[in-house]
Amino acid sequence: MTVPVVAIFIAKPDCESKLDALFRGVIETTLKEEGCIRYQLNRDTQNPRRFVWTEEWQSKALLDKHSNAPHITELFTELLPLIDHSEVIVLEKLAGGQA
Amino acid sequence: MTVPVVAIFIAKPDCESKLDALFRGVIETTLKEEGCIRYQLNRDTQNPRRFVWTEEWQSKALLDKHSNAPHITELFTELLPLIDHSEVIVLEKLAGGQA
Repeated sequence: MTVPVVAIFIAKPDCESKLDALFRGVIETTLKEEGCIRYQLNRDTQNPRRFVWTEEWQSKALLDKHSNAPHITELFTELLPLIDHSEVIVLEKLAGGQA
Repeated sequence: MTVPVVAIFIAKPDCESKLDALFRGVIETTLKEEGCIRYQLNRDTQNPRRFVWTEEWQSKALLDKHSNAPHITELFTELLPLIDHSEVIVLEKLAGGQA
């Protein structure tokens, strides 16, 4: 069973574009990682300071490998001063899916 | 551009299974709706009271049509007494996607 992830970040005021640029900087590397099915950066249409990643991974082990990869640990260090709140929610699929 | 949605619901203590059943009851109908690309029910692996929908729709108009469909308006009435918190986050895709 694959592992969906939703990760929510709220930028500090006036830090949105720096955060946006940091996020875009890790996408290409991540999409090439083993086990990456989906890695999508989205923004809340009602709150431009809220970024929401929607991800899917082959397994928890490969998700953990990603979380510990240098480009991601570096990202989390760099983004700390730019955010008010962050949450990574690791999910298990219950039902439904592709239409 | 398609419209991703993340919807988060936190069940009241001991209401998880009732909420789970209510949610499963609308999936089949929704997957057949016009414009539905993905409609997936997930649960937080660290908090069994937190349900997270990951959805994708062809357009905002078709998402709105879904939100106003009888099976969804009925769902929202029925689930009110079962939840502590809910949030539907309508997103715009910025970058990344399928690996």
